[in-house]
Amino acid sequence: MAAMKLIALKSACKTASFHLGSQKIPLRRNYVRAFSAIMSPPAMAVVYDQHGPPDKLTRIVEIPPVEIKANEVCVKMLAAPINPSDVNRIEGVYPVRPVPPAVGGYEGVGEVYNVGSGVKGLFPGDWVIPFPPSFGTWQSYIVKEQSVWHKINKDTPMEYAATVTVNPLTASRMLKDFVQLNAGDAIVQNGATSMVGQCIIQLARIQGVHSINIIRDRAGADEIKENLMKLGADEVFTESQLAVKNVKDMLGISPEPALGFNCVGGNAATLVLKFLRSGGTMVTYGGMSKKPVTVSTSSFIFKDLSLRGFWLQKWMSTDKADECRDMIDRLLVLMRDGKLKYDMELVPFKDFHSALDKALGKLGSNPKQVLTF
Amino acid sequence: MAAMKLIALKSACKTASFHLGSQKIPLRRNYVRAFSAIMSPPAMAVVYDQHGPPDKLTRIVEIPPVEIKANEVCVKMLAAPINPSDVNRIEGVYPVRPVPPAVGGYEGVGEVYNVGSGVKGLFPGDWVIPFPPSFGTWQSYIVKEQSVWHKINKDTPMEYAATVTVNPLTASRMLKDFVQLNAGDAIVQNGATSMVGQCIIQLARIQGVHSINIIRDRAGADEIKENLMKLGADEVFTESQLAVKNVKDMLGISPEPALGFNCVGGNAATLVLKFLRSGGTMVTYGGMSKKPVTVSTSSFIFKDLSLRGFWLQKWMSTDKADECRDMIDRLLVLMRDGKLKYDMELVPFKDFHSALDKALGKLGSNPKQVLTF
Repeated sequence: MAAMKLIALKSACKTASFHLGSQKIPLRRNYVRAFSAIMSPPAMAVVYDQHGPPDKLTRIVEIPPVEIKANEVCVKMLAAPINPSDVNRIEGVYPVRPVPPAVGGYEGVGEVYNVGSGVKGLFPGDWVIPFPPSFGTWQSYIVKEQSVWHKINKDTPMEYAATVTVNPLTASRMLKDFVQLNAGDAIVQNGATSMVGQCIIQLARIQGVHSINIIRDRAGADEIKENLMKLGADEVFTESQLAVKNVKDMLGISPEPALGFNCVGGNAATLVLKFLRSGGTMVTYGGMSKKPVTVSTSSFIFKDLSLRGFWLQKWMSTDKADECRDMIDRLLVLMRDGKLKYDMELVPFKDFHSALDKALGKLGSNPKQVLTF
Repeated sequence: MAAMKLIALKSACKTASFHLGSQKIPLRRNYVRAFSAIMSPPAMAVVYDQHGPPDKLTRIVEIPPVEIKANEVCVKMLAAPINPSDVNRIEGVYPVRPVPPAVGGYEGVGEVYNVGSGVKGLFPGDWVIPFPPSFGTWQSYIVKEQSVWHKINKDTPMEYAATVTVNPLTASRMLKDFVQLNAGDAIVQNGATSMVGQCIIQLARIQGVHSINIIRDRAGADEIKENLMKLGADEVFTESQLAVKNVKDMLGISPEPALGFNCVGGNAATLVLKFLRSGGTMVTYGGMSKKPVTVSTSSFIFKDLSLRGFWLQKWMSTDKADECRDMIDRLLVLMRDGKLKYDMELVPFKDFHSALDKALGKLGSNPKQVLTF
């Protein structure tokens, strides 16, 4: 194997020198390395040179081979999704973002192609996901330190492994980190058709927790309701259905929820607050309507509501990374067993720009776009 | 003493009976009690018969004497303030309120006048405050169970003892219950001229905590600033001064605050949020502008702000009552030593309606109105 060859070479070269006449000339280390270096294959990558509209500024380019250092792993990417936050990073509106020129993408799954001489426990053919996720998953080969690769079982469908880190992990963490939920409890959420929303429904159901779901008024709302109920939703309402004096009168078998999730803002956030029981918590993790959250004074004082926020990227930079890796493994098992699912469309990497157009909503509503390499 | 006399009487009557001819007639217990009962003096009280405008619906009436039962204490009230929440209770807009007809008032200080036979540790002449505070302090004599009376030292000025439970206790609890503050930290608040606001400034200063204070734009703002600085404020801004791109550029020596207090809502709440550091908490305890709190999605997600509420009445109904009593005692010491002060106007009880007009703001800005008996 390449890694073992490199170790042998390095060992041999450690005290290497050669003679020029009577003069002993030590071999310069980088000279040795030039001979022994393992290089990645050339890669195809989606890059952008400045912040702005992704459909105008991204292009597919070839990246020359790079050296795989001792503690590094070269991964051949298998699949990587286009998430809204990827779009925001390219637009330059995301608080943490790479400095251009940069490669797009943040999560994905790949197969180990080659490893540096110091790498232990990872071998070519292993499946890995970047964790904590890092920038630049929209390229066919990636070379990064071993520490950022999390080895996973290969029995989960590739497209699920590629998408586990951002949306399902957000859903799972939010169900765990704010309120202690027990079987029989309830949660309420808006944006229930989003990928996080669908994961929350399914993960809540697995815990025996009721989910109360709010969706936008739109054509086909009945069909959407039916689909969410099939996923495990207990109650689904459109916003206009909830234009009543007391939304809690609408509750069927679900108890008043202690925990709510908001990814919309505006009126949809107010509806979540109305459903919450006294002392409940609403967690904001998105703002699809681009409207702020508005809260009455009495909600704070007399209803004792708490409002919090959740940002996965910050969470993963804490000391809970190991806990997150365990959670990802558990999510992958659920995915493998068909207990956690959502719609995706697999798109060959060369068709990136048509996938991007779909992800940007230019072609109506489409499932999550997942690039395959 | 009356209490001891009653015990003696009861003891003597325990097996009492009298003879009518040859028939032995046992004395009925309530007959005995009618003889032995200690009664309160008649009281003057501010009562209202229905919810509505306090200035129209309140009247001073005489309440007939009531029996002081074994575990009860009759207190001659010395002083009781008119707080905004007292007004709200009469208006019927406060979530927890007595059912009319009822006596107004919620806190105050009184002197023990007489005690029931089973009362231990309280004697005529002792000073007490109702704790947890209870309805009906606007009357000259009150008879309630011993358990609701908290004995205090008599060395604190009467008007401070009368007002310690609502506003200073709110300030003290809020500085303690949400964020661990250390010397050198900072807090930010709006409504800084309110009684709670003034207490927060002084209590923060005692802890070595900086206070950043926001006041309304109004005539005499400079003088108000000066007065708040004298109390111990580190920084005082009017709202219009803070109409800048980055309010934190306005900060002098104070660090970014981890904790903020909002009793106004609307723009004044937004300003508190802007000052908070990442991960900070804003506690809402009032809504003087009658405008809601509006929060951007990014404040929750990327700035990780938490929004909470505080309601003293709910707090005191928890198992922390003993801790509150200790806190009250510490506040009374600060008041006695002149380290915690605020403006008050003492008004004889008979002039209740003119004090009420001042408390309702009908006569411009006036200090806290405190009724004396």
